[in-house]
Parts: sequence; C-alpha cells; structure tokens
Amino acid sequence: MNFSSKLLENAVNEVSQLPGIGRRTALRLVLHLLRRPNEQTHQLASALNEMVDSIKNCKKCHNISDVELCEICASNNRNEEIVCVVEDIRDVMAIESTAQFKGVYHVLGGKISPMEGVGPQNLTIESLVGKAKSGSIKEVIFALSSTMEGDTTNFYIYRQLEGLGVTMSTIARGISVGDELEYADEVTLGRSIINRIPFENSLQN
Amino acid sequence: MNFSSKLLENAVNEVSQLPGIGRRTALRLVLHLLRRPNEQTHQLASALNEMVDSIKNCKKCHNISDVELCEICASNNRNEEIVCVVEDIRDVMAIESTAQFKGVYHVLGGKISPMEGVGPQNLTIESLVGKAKSGSIKEVIFALSSTMEGDTTNFYIYRQLEGLGVTMSTIARGISVGDELEYADEVTLGRSIINRIPFENSLQN
Repeated sequence: MNFSSKLLENAVNEVSQLPGIGRRTALRLVLHLLRRPNEQTHQLASALNEMVDSIKNCKKCHNISDVELCEICASNNRNEEIVCVVEDIRDVMAIESTAQFKGVYHVLGGKISPMEGVGPQNLTIESLVGKAKSGSIKEVIFALSSTMEGDTTNFYIYRQLEGLGVTMSTIARGISVGDELEYADEVTLGRSIINRIPFENSLQN
Repeated sequence: MNFSSKLLENAVNEVSQLPGIGRRTALRLVLHLLRRPNEQTHQLASALNEMVDSIKNCKKCHNISDVELCEICASNNRNEEIVCVVEDIRDVMAIESTAQFKGVYHVLGGKISPMEGVGPQNLTIESLVGKAKSGSIKEVIFALSSTMEGDTTNFYIYRQLEGLGVTMSTIARGISVGDELEYADEVTLGRSIINRIPFENSLQN
C-alpha cells in the first residue's frame, strides 16, 4: 500500500500488528478515527496506556485486577478450598456469569504448548502446587479447553499434585443443553454416554 | 460482561467503539496488548494521537496528507486538467496502484446520503465547482461506487458542472477481467453489452 501520509502509514502499521487485523482493516479503523473528534482518540490512547501501565495480577489467583488481591479472592463468601483452574480472565468471566461456582480460581495464563514455546515454567503452575502443598486446597477442578494443549496441561498439573491429598476433577463434557443428538460429534456423544449421570442428579439442575 | 478490573473495562469500552469491533473482539485485542511489552502499546497510542493531531487535508484535492499540498497535486508530471472524483483516500490508493491515471484527484470525503445525514454541503463539492468555474478543468471522471448514493452524488455534481464546458465521464462498468460470464450478475452483464467498445480499442490495453 502506498500512503500519501507518513502519519497515516505509521498508525496503520501499529494497528495492523494487533491479532486478526490486516492492513486493510487497520486502514478502515484509522480512517474512522480521523472522522470523529480528536478527543475520542486521545481517550482511547490514554485508556490503553493506563491499562498496560497500571494493571496488576492478583497475587493469589493471578487473575487481572486493579488491586493486589482480586475481588473474588478477597470475598468472604467464597470457598477457598475449591480451586478452579482456568487459562485466562475470559474463562473466569464465563464461569462467573453462570453463578454456579462458589469456590475460587487459579489463572494459569495459558496452556502448555511446545509449538508456541510455552512450557510449565511460563505458567503459574508452581504457585498452584505451592498452595496445594500448604494444605489450603481440598479440590482442584480443571476447566481448560479440551484440546491437546489443554489435556497436556491438565495431566502435567495432575502429576504435580498427585499424592498431596487433593481431589482432582474436570468439568463435564457432553451434549450442550438444547442441542440435537444427530448433529453432535461422535467423540462428544460417545463421552456423554460413558460419563452418564444418575437420572435423579440431572433433575436437581 | 463483568470485568474484574476497571482499567481493563475502560480499555475494552474504548476499543469496542471502533466500527466492526464488538466487546468480545475488543477484549481479545486488549488482552493481547497486556501480553506484549508496554512500550509497544505506548507506540500504538502515540501513533494514533499524533495522526489525529497533525494530519492535514491537501488544500487542492482534499486528500489526507502530511503537508499543505499533497504529493500528487504538487507533482509536475500530472495533468491537472483531468480530475478524477473519488470518495476517499482508499480509492486514490486503489487507482494509483493501477498506474493508469496521470491526472489529479478530487476527494469528496463521502457520498450524498440522506439516510446518514450527509448532504452536498458536507462534501467538498463546492471546491470542485470552484475549480471548474475557474476554467482549470477540462475533464471530470466520476469514480464513485455504483450504489444509489454514488449515483446520486454523480448526478448532483453533473448538474452543478453542466454548462461550464467540462467533459464528464464515468469509469467503465463491466465484467471483471478473468471472470466467467455465467457467474456475472445480469445488470453488469447487460451494461457491458450496451456499453461495448470497438474491438481494436480492447487490443490497446
């Protein structure tokens, strides 16, 4: 692309470094900025700057937070003995919105992925093992996505926590509520039969 | 969405105001910013700020430019008597990349669209009429998109320039080079037959 303006080109270059945004989309976004009042762009810029400069990770669960100890970890209504292991803040938000979980979280910050150069030492696994060793955890619930990387990470943590007297469970995989059986993939359908639950239990939800 | 951090929420709110970016995509982009070095986000922010604060419009063609008179208007190799009327800088970039046009441009800044509240007074039509009245233009080429708004804008300008001794033409509509006839829409195919050109002319390209 041949830009008539260096300023425009710089802005497009910066925006197109974001994931999933190519140069054409970047140009469209940047031209939109030029069409609206300058203050709005200043606000955008300072919101981004403030965020990266001032944001913290909760020292306990490693979730993104404005303060040292996040709201969930600081709450008295949470059972700190049940820890749900998730990949990042989006998973915490998803589980929180179900209002079904009253324990606390442990945010790994990713999954073990040799392809992307992410090893166990890049995640917050050591801190989780530390908590388990201190005896403050009774149950760990694995809630990572069921991909190869997720399964690897689950298994790695499982081996680390083995013998520490921690119950380990994983969230149920099965047919989505409301889904038709004929459209479900075989692996999920197969697992949902193997892991069937007593009918009385299903009535409680 | 329930954010654990006000700073994160602010950033997501700002980013999700961009066109075509919802809150989920905004969160994904913003989390990406948190994963990379802070300086990169500062660079992004200052590129956007500098752009909106310092960018100019060429005083002659109204295209986006860093200087008072854009490169194309300032060039000696351009025929200033042939003016191509386009909507915005993207059209200029598209036509420039063909290297087939040696005239200059006139950037309208949009199309007449009563639905979006854009009238002729919001565009740079007056400046184009001024140029035509001063006698510096011999031919105007309309290169707006062939939508209702584009056609309206073409016709409005046509009426304004009528009788000023300016030749007015519009870019050819037809089947794309390399396209199969069977997949072309009927309107385009119909027009391409009505506006057929002498075979010898087609050999020149």
